[in-house]
Amino acid sequence: MSEELSEILERAEIAIQQRDAVLVHKLCVNLHHADLAELYEDAHPEDRIFLTENLGSEKFSEILAELPDTLVEETLDSFQPHEQREMLHSLADDDRVDILQDVSDSKRRDFLEMLDEEKQKDTRTLLRYDEETAGGRMTTQVGKVLATMSVKDAIEHLRGDLESTSTLARIFVVNEDDKLVGKIRLRDLAFNAWDVAIKDVVQDIDHSILATADQEDAAYMISRYDMLILPVVDESNRLLGVITADDAIEILEEESTEDIEKGAGIAGDQSEETYLNTSIASHFKRRCGWLVVLGFLAILSGFVMMRFEHTLTQIYLLSLFLPMVVAAGGNTGGQASTMVIRAMALGELDPEDTSRVAWKEMRLGLLLGALLGVIIGIFAVFAPPALQFTLPAGVNFTQFGLTVAIAIAVQVATSTLIGALLPIGARAIKMDPAVVASPAITTIVDVSGMVIYFTVARSILAV
Amino acid sequence: MSEELSEILERAEIAIQQRDAVLVHKLCVNLHHADLAELYEDAHPEDRIFLTENLGSEKFSEILAELPDTLVEETLDSFQPHEQREMLHSLADDDRVDILQDVSDSKRRDFLEMLDEEKQKDTRTLLRYDEETAGGRMTTQVGKVLATMSVKDAIEHLRGDLESTSTLARIFVVNEDDKLVGKIRLRDLAFNAWDVAIKDVVQDIDHSILATADQEDAAYMISRYDMLILPVVDESNRLLGVITADDAIEILEEESTEDIEKGAGIAGDQSEETYLNTSIASHFKRRCGWLVVLGFLAILSGFVMMRFEHTLTQIYLLSLFLPMVVAAGGNTGGQASTMVIRAMALGELDPEDTSRVAWKEMRLGLLLGALLGVIIGIFAVFAPPALQFTLPAGVNFTQFGLTVAIAIAVQVATSTLIGALLPIGARAIKMDPAVVASPAITTIVDVSGMVIYFTVARSILAV
Repeated sequence: MSEELSEILERAEIAIQQRDAVLVHKLCVNLHHADLAELYEDAHPEDRIFLTENLGSEKFSEILAELPDTLVEETLDSFQPHEQREMLHSLADDDRVDILQDVSDSKRRDFLEMLDEEKQKDTRTLLRYDEETAGGRMTTQVGKVLATMSVKDAIEHLRGDLESTSTLARIFVVNEDDKLVGKIRLRDLAFNAWDVAIKDVVQDIDHSILATADQEDAAYMISRYDMLILPVVDESNRLLGVITADDAIEILEEESTEDIEKGAGIAGDQSEETYLNTSIASHFKRRCGWLVVLGFLAILSGFVMMRFEHTLTQIYLLSLFLPMVVAAGGNTGGQASTMVIRAMALGELDPEDTSRVAWKEMRLGLLLGALLGVIIGIFAVFAPPALQFTLPAGVNFTQFGLTVAIAIAVQVATSTLIGALLPIGARAIKMDPAVVASPAITTIVDVSGMVIYFTVARSILAV
Repeated sequence: MSEELSEILERAEIAIQQRDAVLVHKLCVNLHHADLAELYEDAHPEDRIFLTENLGSEKFSEILAELPDTLVEETLDSFQPHEQREMLHSLADDDRVDILQDVSDSKRRDFLEMLDEEKQKDTRTLLRYDEETAGGRMTTQVGKVLATMSVKDAIEHLRGDLESTSTLARIFVVNEDDKLVGKIRLRDLAFNAWDVAIKDVVQDIDHSILATADQEDAAYMISRYDMLILPVVDESNRLLGVITADDAIEILEEESTEDIEKGAGIAGDQSEETYLNTSIASHFKRRCGWLVVLGFLAILSGFVMMRFEHTLTQIYLLSLFLPMVVAAGGNTGGQASTMVIRAMALGELDPEDTSRVAWKEMRLGLLLGALLGVIIGIFAVFAPPALQFTLPAGVNFTQFGLTVAIAIAVQVATSTLIGALLPIGARAIKMDPAVVASPAITTIVDVSGMVIYFTVARSILAV
């Protein structure tokens, strides 16, 4: 955010707290609705009411579309019914649907009743699509012309819908059954003679998406093919609406945040609210699940430690490198799983690539393991001579260094492979790969690390 | 990716391996250049040469723009100089600049010499901007008209540049000094009478960005304000070019991948190549650094274990819950740091929010710690009576359960706070917050976890 904008927002915040309506108006009149939404979201509840009263319903219909789900209903409730009706009418249809999806069932019925007949019908149609599908995300406000028109007809036809059409960067050409047959660019209308036929300037549709498809697939298509607008169709190829590049940006950002959070063992849907505005209860709910599950899993490592009591108490110096051997597995396994999960999210890995991934990560694991083994082996032999007294008779430091080196090499190599393959395995059994991201991998390879370390120690040091 | 597309790509792959030029042509002729780039990138080196020979230089100029950095030079080298010249000329100027940034200095000089005078001058200007800035990312192919023109003048003026203008979704209005004074929409030209003056339809510019600004700021602006096109200006507000929504998508995807990778302790710039096409050496280089650093850090935990030898060997049952107490800190600290780092990346947290973050995470940490403490305390007391024999005389299971419960509660609470505050601290001293993501936090709270566990055990169990 620019410094200038931060400053305006800060001054507005103070003006709101001081109930200075004149200054608030002066500061807010030129702000973009995205900035106003932030101002509103960050304000205290009583300050929010002051804002709704002072900015007025017209300005607020745009702000409404930018608010997190949880704030939508109470915000609408602070307006009079006639204002609510105006706000709902002035919204773009995809924003209106989003908002109606965020309110309670009874409110939704009330709000739908407020709409005029045509808008009500359109809105009900859109509400049938799941929020996460292309249909649930599209806007029906699309520039549409018939193949039989001339440039002049098309311009006349579009002129009527001009106000309700969000973008004309692409105009779609349909036949009399509303089936998608092609696209033209607005420049084809602007720069051609009026008597040119649309069918002479129409271009083929390279990409469209079914309304029932996942919104992520739509965003992925827009991103891959550098599109501004993607047409959404039904099974009979009838044009239902469009998804625009700014929708794609929003979808991809949400997905990335979700992936990042899942990768840290944070469960549930990403909050639409900012970090600070999300309640403690909802933060708690999203974090406690994995924490408890992983906590119990970690007791397995404890059982391994119990089993090797004799080994550890005989050569207590082993404990100096125990956390390191164990943690190195978690770190390298986490790196491998993160790389593989991201590659899958970007659509780079097919199931048949599994053996290539395994071969790649096995070599990487051996290399990384060898590197750490050599470094730590040298360190173990040369660095801490002051600790030598704790070694029992018959064990020398070369043996000890070798133990640590071999253990860490084996641990890193196996953990790398486990980290890379578990997400692929998860996907194969239709689980979300992100579930086996770093924290789960770390806990799993903690157990294997203990077993590896103590087993190697037993056989080399003969304890 | 759609199944149909995957199938075509697979069939094309086989046709390439069989050197079936006719089938390759048939399969590839209708593919989008993004798909062809994937086909080319995934092919073996000798198959790539077959593809360049068979698809021809015209098709390849578009593919070139989609290739990862490392493939650009060798691909260009497989064409004749006159083909290289054609390819470089037919590229959009931002793509051409990207490509020239990817080749060696001497090649860059050669390729620049091939361009005609005007393109050479424009390209040299763009090459002056750093690759990561708005200027380095923009295209200069922008629709531009003068405020003094009429709609007719503007149409005539734009018609000349039509082929070289990538998008006309927004047309920018400048004065005689090329300074940005406003914008119009193409629809303002298409749907207005020819004698209407541009100054009567011009709209204010709400957002523009300096060419020297970070490309991320540009992408962030496009995303926040749902823009299709963002104008890029110099210090005197002269219009230099534009960044489009598809650039923003690319920038944001790169940033998200980088954040995800950094969060797993993977160093260095994200590879432009896919996971499978990235060499072992470059994977190795990006992963080994943190692995070694964290490995040595983990020895600190080992030192703590050594220090508490007496405590652990006296009540060896403590080892049953040692990994769990330690790991719970890593997991909760990782969750907290991930949430805070992502909130910072999305621009939600200012430095003055530190105390609010601390207050939030302290309460969360206490709640999560209390939850785990109670669950684990109950488990420790009731679950493993078979292990009771290892407790020394004078210690009962209630005391033992209390020890584990208190230790895990304290560990979770402090780790949550550390996880949330370290990234903020890192930013305060101008370090990248992502550096203290999960793996680093985990290693740090491993140490504190050991100290907490053994200290609590000592004081409650009096060993």
